[in-house]
Amino acid sequence: MSIITLTTDFGCKDHFVGALKGKIYSEFSDAKIVDISHEIDLFNVSETSYVIGASYGSFPKGTVHIIGVDSELHQETQHIAMEWNDQYFICADNGVLSMLTQKIIPQKIVAINIHDRLAINATAMDVFVTVACHIARGGLLNVIGREITQLREVTELQAVVNQDGNSIKGNVIYVDHCGNVVTNISRQLFTEIGKGRKYEIGFRNYKLKTILPNYSAIVNFDQNPMKFYEGRELAIFNEAGFLEIAIYRSNPKSSGSASSLLGMNYRDLVTISFI
Amino acid sequence: MSIITLTTDFGCKDHFVGALKGKIYSEFSDAKIVDISHEIDLFNVSETSYVIGASYGSFPKGTVHIIGVDSELHQETQHIAMEWNDQYFICADNGVLSMLTQKIIPQKIVAINIHDRLAINATAMDVFVTVACHIARGGLLNVIGREITQLREVTELQAVVNQDGNSIKGNVIYVDHCGNVVTNISRQLFTEIGKGRKYEIGFRNYKLKTILPNYSAIVNFDQNPMKFYEGRELAIFNEAGFLEIAIYRSNPKSSGSASSLLGMNYRDLVTISFI
Amino acid sequence: MSIITLTTDFGCKDHFVGALKGKIYSEFSDAKIVDISHEIDLFNVSETSYVIGASYGSFPKGTVHIIGVDSELHQETQHIAMEWNDQYFICADNGVLSMLTQKIIPQKIVAINIHDRLAINATAMDVFVTVACHIARGGLLNVIGREITQLREVTELQAVVNQDGNSIKGNVIYVDHCGNVVTNISRQLFTEIGKGRKYEIGFRNYKLKTILPNYSAIVNFDQNPMKFYEGRELAIFNEAGFLEIAIYRSNPKSSGSASSLLGMNYRDLVTISFI
Repeated sequence: MSIITLTTDFGCKDHFVGALKGKIYSEFSDAKIVDISHEIDLFNVSETSYVIGASYGSFPKGTVHIIGVDSELHQETQHIAMEWNDQYFICADNGVLSMLTQKIIPQKIVAINIHDRLAINATAMDVFVTVACHIARGGLLNVIGREITQLREVTELQAVVNQDGNSIKGNVIYVDHCGNVVTNISRQLFTEIGKGRKYEIGFRNYKLKTILPNYSAIVNFDQNPMKFYEGRELAIFNEAGFLEIAIYRSNPKSSGSASSLLGMNYRDLVTISFI
Repeated sequence: MSIITLTTDFGCKDHFVGALKGKIYSEFSDAKIVDISHEIDLFNVSETSYVIGASYGSFPKGTVHIIGVDSELHQETQHIAMEWNDQYFICADNGVLSMLTQKIIPQKIVAINIHDRLAINATAMDVFVTVACHIARGGLLNVIGREITQLREVTELQAVVNQDGNSIKGNVIYVDHCGNVVTNISRQLFTEIGKGRKYEIGFRNYKLKTILPNYSAIVNFDQNPMKFYEGRELAIFNEAGFLEIAIYRSNPKSSGSASSLLGMNYRDLVTISFI
Repeated sequence: MSIITLTTDFGCKDHFVGALKGKIYSEFSDAKIVDISHEIDLFNVSETSYVIGASYGSFPKGTVHIIGVDSELHQETQHIAMEWNDQYFICADNGVLSMLTQKIIPQKIVAINIHDRLAINATAMDVFVTVACHIARGGLLNVIGREITQLREVTELQAVVNQDGNSIKGNVIYVDHCGNVVTNISRQLFTEIGKGRKYEIGFRNYKLKTILPNYSAIVNFDQNPMKFYEGRELAIFNEAGFLEIAIYRSNPKSSGSASSLLGMNYRDLVTISFI
């Protein structure tokens, strides 16, 4: 099996995603193509990095991920392919892999150097498709690139621990389909710094004293029906392992969401203070 | 062939749908995955039930349908798997199968009981993927659940016949991509109650006296060009067999739609009076 | 390999696209289905024609394209299947193939005549699926239709050359996901008429004197960082070979786009004057 995933900011109206799949099947008809997202905010490297970091774990070893965000080749960037945790990532060196490389050291990174073997008007996607199919067929990274050791990093994805070790300052890095806001504070950092102490989560003028194991844990079924709890704000560590501020059973289109009701957006501050 | 379909309210921006597919392929690489919709209104059980009811007929026997709407497990619900009309449906017991079970009696229903065999942080989707792949590989329902006989029902999906048998009261249950509004009045109920009598369809202050065989039947090509009829309201039984109020060749983004122009929305009343 | 692509105005919320795939797999389980777009503006034949013209080149020989835009059968149209450039196109005869037929002569066109072999309530999509699967399995066009020679054309897709041969008048035919506007002026026409002369591109009160080889060519990396050039208007020939007016690294959701900032929309005028 050779899964090739696609994460882009191409949107779904234009023909670009379909054309990309046509090119992949033309080169490698046995590919299994999976769309991760094509609705990444345009050129948004942090958002891409979060989405990639949150999804790779659902794919088997050997999966090849094409990342088509901010991928046009120019003087200040290069196209790269990375082997990491037994999966492969193909993208421009613009920081989209930061969420991964902050976690585990890459097995190998190459700067792709096959551009002069392709047609003169080959696009970034033509390059990525060629590389992805090469890898999916079992090809080696060294054949399509020159080994490098350093990648560009996006720093805004990292939460900061106060000098006294008593608080963590994080930011909203993603607003999801339900309007829930995801921060860059990981469960791992929280556990390491908190060491089991009591805590208070602060954002704007809100305070939360509990991180729930799941959304429905806010309901006390013995006291009130579920409906009673709808619209309450809560905090959980989401599946990707990051602190998320949510509104129980919210709907951005009707009742509003964590983002709209609590006024929390991309980059806004969230603090955990340990007591 | 083992088709697994997905119907969720996850949206297409987040990584959740892609991750779900990664998990399915990881367990069962031969699966053929088909997206039915990921744009279900959040937690909307009636809408889901309509979409499932309208689409199962296009799939072959043995198809497995994963329904990821309002599926978090909590004290007042359970995860279920149903064999019905030689297809399989996996969901929370929240009423999403009402449109089906009102029509044909299920062959078998089980309350899924494999949760303690999965990882402690397994999500509803992890449970559904495990069950879906089990069924797609030819596994039996009894292996993954305990047989039950009753399901929760959504009653708002049923139209009501007046005591004198001279009228049907229905409601809008779905507004489609064109802004056409679909009611819960089925062709079958209309035929049974109407017995060939004349009728009048009423909604707000509009009246329609004909249900057309298809949209273009509103055009009298001998009298006027097609353009002349654009923007007219009409009624048809749609492919799913339900009464639909439409505007001929409407466009919600420019000229407006049945929903916006006639002021008809989810739950609004539509009556058929027989004369 | 038998790729079947789908281009429709069905949107992604309703069940129609999923149902269409279910029908294809039911008839031909080995099909590889690729979505080109389901977000075509409703009934918009020009937009469809552009999308098809821009994407066919990414697919291998033998690919079958189903086009579900304005496809309901009525007295003034017919369903057709066309063999063209070793690919196949199935649609209503409403002009959606103009972009292709203006470029290369079709190998064969048939008016589909299998309607009376299908169920009485068969939809346009049922017809197209039957034809597509027939072709994908290697079937001949003559078996499912009667040969014809003429197709309906959409004329607004063609740019016009001034009588003196010193200017080209074109129109916006597509606004893409980034808000960039695509005109009907092809690189080929530009080269033929321009014969290497200097030129000026005019639209509204803007003038551009250069068509860049790619977006990033607007950046002079020796003088300023990339950020300095964001938001500037530029012209390129896009991948499909048409003149595109873009804003460098624009975002319609935040900073605005070529369409919103320059006030350019579907059908607006763009002129190239040669000096």
